[in-house]
Amino acid sequence: MAAVLSFSAADEDYLRELGEYVALPSVSRDADPATMRATAEWISAQMGLLNGRVEQTAGHPVARGEWNEQEGAPTVLVYGHYDVQPTGSLSEWQSPPFELTRDGEVVRGRGVSDDKGPVFMVMKVLQAFITQQGRLPLNVKLLIEGEEEIGSPHLAAYVEEHAAELGADLVISADGAIWRPSEPSISLGSKGLVSLTVEVSGAAMDLHSGRYGGTVANPAGALATILAGLHRPDGTVAVPGFYETIPALSQQRRREIAAVPFDDLEYARQLGLPETYGEVGYSTLERLWERPTLEVNGIEGGGKYTVIPHLARAHISCRLVPGQEPERILDRVTERIMALAQPGVRVRVVPDPGSVPAYTLPADNPGVLAARVALEAVYPEQPVLFAKIGGSVPATALFERVLRRKTLFFSFSTSDENLHAPNEFLRIHRLREGMRAWEVLLLELSSRLGRS
Amino acid sequence: MAAVLSFSAADEDYLRELGEYVALPSVSRDADPATMRATAEWISAQMGLLNGRVEQTAGHPVARGEWNEQEGAPTVLVYGHYDVQPTGSLSEWQSPPFELTRDGEVVRGRGVSDDKGPVFMVMKVLQAFITQQGRLPLNVKLLIEGEEEIGSPHLAAYVEEHAAELGADLVISADGAIWRPSEPSISLGSKGLVSLTVEVSGAAMDLHSGRYGGTVANPAGALATILAGLHRPDGTVAVPGFYETIPALSQQRRREIAAVPFDDLEYARQLGLPETYGEVGYSTLERLWERPTLEVNGIEGGGKYTVIPHLARAHISCRLVPGQEPERILDRVTERIMALAQPGVRVRVVPDPGSVPAYTLPADNPGVLAARVALEAVYPEQPVLFAKIGGSVPATALFERVLRRKTLFFSFSTSDENLHAPNEFLRIHRLREGMRAWEVLLLELSSRLGRS
Repeated sequence: MAAVLSFSAADEDYLRELGEYVALPSVSRDADPATMRATAEWISAQMGLLNGRVEQTAGHPVARGEWNEQEGAPTVLVYGHYDVQPTGSLSEWQSPPFELTRDGEVVRGRGVSDDKGPVFMVMKVLQAFITQQGRLPLNVKLLIEGEEEIGSPHLAAYVEEHAAELGADLVISADGAIWRPSEPSISLGSKGLVSLTVEVSGAAMDLHSGRYGGTVANPAGALATILAGLHRPDGTVAVPGFYETIPALSQQRRREIAAVPFDDLEYARQLGLPETYGEVGYSTLERLWERPTLEVNGIEGGGKYTVIPHLARAHISCRLVPGQEPERILDRVTERIMALAQPGVRVRVVPDPGSVPAYTLPADNPGVLAARVALEAVYPEQPVLFAKIGGSVPATALFERVLRRKTLFFSFSTSDENLHAPNEFLRIHRLREGMRAWEVLLLELSSRLGRS
Repeated sequence: MAAVLSFSAADEDYLRELGEYVALPSVSRDADPATMRATAEWISAQMGLLNGRVEQTAGHPVARGEWNEQEGAPTVLVYGHYDVQPTGSLSEWQSPPFELTRDGEVVRGRGVSDDKGPVFMVMKVLQAFITQQGRLPLNVKLLIEGEEEIGSPHLAAYVEEHAAELGADLVISADGAIWRPSEPSISLGSKGLVSLTVEVSGAAMDLHSGRYGGTVANPAGALATILAGLHRPDGTVAVPGFYETIPALSQQRRREIAAVPFDDLEYARQLGLPETYGEVGYSTLERLWERPTLEVNGIEGGGKYTVIPHLARAHISCRLVPGQEPERILDRVTERIMALAQPGVRVRVVPDPGSVPAYTLPADNPGVLAARVALEAVYPEQPVLFAKIGGSVPATALFERVLRRKTLFFSFSTSDENLHAPNEFLRIHRLREGMRAWEVLLLELSSRLGRS
């Protein structure tokens, strides 16, 4: 369907408004409740005629809205999140993380790409429909949560309790990301996630490495032995049973992936790396989209002193693919860690709450077909790729289980925009591209969802 | 010789004065030059009639003093240090580290045991000789440095430049420690030290572990592989050539060590450990005194976020024994680290300045004989053990090279007093024991050094 809206405000006006949103430091891991609520209030105020409001959960609140005035028309539930990742070391930021800062063709700030910018675009489209057309092309419900970056621990209870109000024909996630800046892509799935902390403890206190060296086990060394034992030299995960429930990658999927233009060396170069690396037997894209991973996210213990540290700690996460059951993988990884424990230290595994299974969306889902039309309308010269999200969006499994609906990822974040890292940014041109694409998507879905 | 001095001040008076010294936060790694100078001034003021003064070096200054009024009498050079280790995490301290705090039979504070308390005792003995006898039993020179805890990087140049002024028949180090609280001991050597930092770097920034997982090497994982590869499962150091230049442990020394009362389980229990641990084929005491070690002192990288950290770092130190040449060991460890580097990351080794070779003092040195008499005078009921210091005292090799004199360790620190750790403490009874022992030591040396 042809686009109908005009987005007449200047970039500066959109960015000024988005800057207010980014200025709210809604770090779900650390922020005080008042800050989280203020951020939820800000985004709910953007919902305008959609009855925007903030509702309590057992954790950080959600922002809700809906417009149900087209009886008989299909309904979509738009999901996103207003919380953001911690900033990490401030010294690594080129500008203050909570001051949206324009730098050439991008704007920088924590959360601008994940997920404040992408949700903001949806709000602008809904506002334009209401202002310019007096109506939306279909019924729309909004659910913007505040705990995505900590694994959405309270979302399930909230959605279960409000399942009837949240019912829709399709969920559309404004979280997720375009895989590469140069090509539009639609995600046909996302990886699952489990994570845990390993703690290796030794003596009651740090010990002088000379006065005690040679007599006691070293927790930092024992932790290194555990971490090193979680992979084989060929890049495979050395956890018995880690891969065994995963269906073999089909020859058809391998061909599809091989057809995607991808240059390993250029990819590595852009990241500042000498080369790519990963599980033997799979291409880089196969590993990114179709294979599970185990990563050490952080290590700490002792310091630059001549001590034997009394405690060493690592944080580990696994990205899961279809066929892997999160709790089972957590058990297997824990067993392997305990099997690698050296004598002379104590090893403890503390799993994080909020594991997420992998998620898949069939290529013939009406949401995927509509998204393709929308992307082709905005990027007429570029082929639309079918990718997968290496990241994990916990809400998708929840919506499938409770609302019995699939989730379409439709976000105008791009995966190279330093999500979860210092100097997160958003490409400014995505603002208008995203708004136009959402407009076409909603128009397409108004007819396609009826037909499915 | 019989003791002649009276130490009539109350414990409280000594502790009040020692408290002033501990209150000066002379952390050589971090402190500002004014704080370091103030600490040097404080201890030089204690030198009283020994012409106490502060002298500049290329780094933190030294406190110097001397009393040369007995022509023809032997001369000793007393060495110690006024700098202290960093505090580490303040939350682990039971009282502020720079407020000397009495807690039952001990006083707690950074540096009180290493090395402020032990140096303070020497000053009290010298003051008592001068006040009560009008003279010292032999000529005494004092050299209290401010960079021992960072490897004494500028001491060598200073001692070389002032070699003629510092000449003596014996050096006595007030740094070192009594090995166990229950038995007096004399150290017949100390281990050497080399240390380095390993940096493993990956991408230019932290990467989202989902959006990049499986495509790039993980610096924290790669670091763990390196660290794990530095030991074998049997506790030996897996660095080719690490042990090859070390003379075999003699049967006689093994018998001597086996005769020292030592209970592995009790030792482990006191440290809060399930068991002792170390190189296969040697007892715990053999490993502590006679065998080299490689320890991971600290690890850091990433955090509790779902990222692939862009950088992971470890600090490593080796304690060396006679036969090991520090620069050669550093080269061997570096070669091993580079051989363990995985593809896809960059590995860099940064050696710390100030390596120290191992040091040995023969059991028939007149200093050792005098120390034995002094300890037997103070602890008449307890046999004097011959131990070694697992720690490293860089100055000993320097004094041997430049002044051509051996160094006797004579310190009333005890090795369990949380040196280099939070809650460093000193046993209060050591104050009087140490002062009396130094008195007897100086009296003994006045005749024995003449005879040697």
